[in-house]
Amino acid sequence: MKTITWKTLKEFGITYLEKKGVSHAHAEEITELAVQTEAMGVRTHGMAVYTYFEQAIPADLVPEAEPEVVKEKGPTALIDGNSGFSQLSLLLACSIGLEKVRKYGTAVIAGRNCSWLAALGTYLLPISEKGYLAQLWAQTSTCKDAAPFGGYDPRFSTNPIALSFPTSPGLSLSDISTTSISMGRLHNMIERGEQAPEAIFLNSQGVLSKNPQDVLDGGSILFLGGQQLGHKGYGLSLFNEALAANAGGSCNNPASEMRQSFTLIIIDPEAFGGTEYYEHEIQRFIAHVKSSRKRPGFSEIRLPGERRMQLLEASRSEGISMDDTLVEKLNTLAQRYSLPEIR
Amino acid sequence: MKTITWKTLKEFGITYLEKKGVSHAHAEEITELAVQTEAMGVRTHGMAVYTYFEQAIPADLVPEAEPEVVKEKGPTALIDGNSGFSQLSLLLACSIGLEKVRKYGTAVIAGRNCSWLAALGTYLLPISEKGYLAQLWAQTSTCKDAAPFGGYDPRFSTNPIALSFPTSPGLSLSDISTTSISMGRLHNMIERGEQAPEAIFLNSQGVLSKNPQDVLDGGSILFLGGQQLGHKGYGLSLFNEALAANAGGSCNNPASEMRQSFTLIIIDPEAFGGTEYYEHEIQRFIAHVKSSRKRPGFSEIRLPGERRMQLLEASRSEGISMDDTLVEKLNTLAQRYSLPEIR
Repeated sequence: MKTITWKTLKEFGITYLEKKGVSHAHAEEITELAVQTEAMGVRTHGMAVYTYFEQAIPADLVPEAEPEVVKEKGPTALIDGNSGFSQLSLLLACSIGLEKVRKYGTAVIAGRNCSWLAALGTYLLPISEKGYLAQLWAQTSTCKDAAPFGGYDPRFSTNPIALSFPTSPGLSLSDISTTSISMGRLHNMIERGEQAPEAIFLNSQGVLSKNPQDVLDGGSILFLGGQQLGHKGYGLSLFNEALAANAGGSCNNPASEMRQSFTLIIIDPEAFGGTEYYEHEIQRFIAHVKSSRKRPGFSEIRLPGERRMQLLEASRSEGISMDDTLVEKLNTLAQRYSLPEIR
Repeated sequence: MKTITWKTLKEFGITYLEKKGVSHAHAEEITELAVQTEAMGVRTHGMAVYTYFEQAIPADLVPEAEPEVVKEKGPTALIDGNSGFSQLSLLLACSIGLEKVRKYGTAVIAGRNCSWLAALGTYLLPISEKGYLAQLWAQTSTCKDAAPFGGYDPRFSTNPIALSFPTSPGLSLSDISTTSISMGRLHNMIERGEQAPEAIFLNSQGVLSKNPQDVLDGGSILFLGGQQLGHKGYGLSLFNEALAANAGGSCNNPASEMRQSFTLIIIDPEAFGGTEYYEHEIQRFIAHVKSSRKRPGFSEIRLPGERRMQLLEASRSEGISMDDTLVEKLNTLAQRYSLPEIR
């Protein structure tokens, strides 16, 4: 592990994107999200996004494309990413959503035709910090990660969902794939030579497996709930696909271009039971949850995202702890584009 | 198993509720939902609701209470159930939601202070039959069903979610608890002397268990995802609690009265990528999903709710297949209140 400063990673990311033809302002926005995600300890979806950019530009991702609002009706809006950075589409969605939720009590912003969004949760922090509840659903058109419940031909990406709500002070942030694990975590398991503790994979012949390599060899990841209860993750994932069709995007389709669709839903407690009541009740409830006795191996009852938020805060003064392998990969890019080395 | 006609169950339910002081119109609405749920094969949440009514009226459920809209803002509304039948609150929410979604492209209707909603999915059928996507979240204030991830003192109800979307023709309907199984299914397992195939329970000392009785003896049901991945179900369940606080309802609180809160979210494809595009894309995608090869033991790749919809359709002419035990329980009520016997 290496400890790297925010400043170093920001400089690397911004300079890299500028060399790829991205404006300084957009390079700054995209990099801020990546560094923040890395600082939260989400190693699979943080600075790793630059290795994705390197593969995706310009084949799957047009670096100079601007997202645009193609439809708007009261509390709703639809954004077309124009095959550009999904980060820009989703930041636009968040900004429009925040305006609308104040006016309407809720907002639903959908996006299509975007590149890889990486970690969904990061986008929701500023929304719940402002006192709103938020859901974010995202889907990829071409992945072959998961098979329908009862089948073994992959027809779904890992179709993640992020859910956040204010805990006053603070917030809770759950960022989950609707499959047992994400592809990022799968690749990490393979790199480390790990097997899953339970059979959460199918091999290419539909046989249960604990070996992550089987997924890359034509198999799939079981939905959340696994062999017995995977119909639940399947249901969540299908709703994600329906939202992609709702956005005018492409549901899973091996013949399509690699694109993501997303749907952001924001809710303002002030339009319902009132912010004051919400804050008081959620505080009481969180204390009630945290008072539970702990199982062996758990030092604390945590809310989803709680540890990530602590890492994020500490990273401002202490720097960001990074995997050596990722730093090496980024330094290969640094060398290729004459960027300052990360160290 | 016994086969009972719709007419018999409707007569039983309406007459029972009228004897409890419910108006004929409301008795009809509540019974229609219960029979429909039973007809869909959801035996834990169908006609079983009458055995719940018998226990809950009048201690937890005021039979003559009317739900009321206590707040309204653009696409949002808040309903107070006034401790009455949750069925009436949620039917009101659906009706307001359908009006609002046409106007605003989305609608978010929250409810609080309701009794037991039973099966969430049934309420969503008419919404997705009209071409909309819908989410329904529900939470109960007093249950001790599930412990926070890493803990073993129960702090959550099974906090279910229902998700529906049009498949043009037809619809997909997923109705899931955010715990591994629902309490209804747990009671059924106990009645049948079944153990779970995996350790999805904790006993009162936080030790993993396959024995459903342990839950009733002070233990809990693991969240969806189980021991390894239960943080995912935990995240979904917590969001359900935050929505309860948003509705001005009570989050989990053993000191509170037994009440449910709910949040209904409706989305109109016409406000986003357009209904025509949606229908075309979802049809293509569903065909793609269903073309997957099947695993042993599965005769078909089904969408969530597909079999339930088939049972519902068949029940109109063929009657409803019911568990003997439930029919016996209902006939005890029939005798107590001089209602016609179910047979």
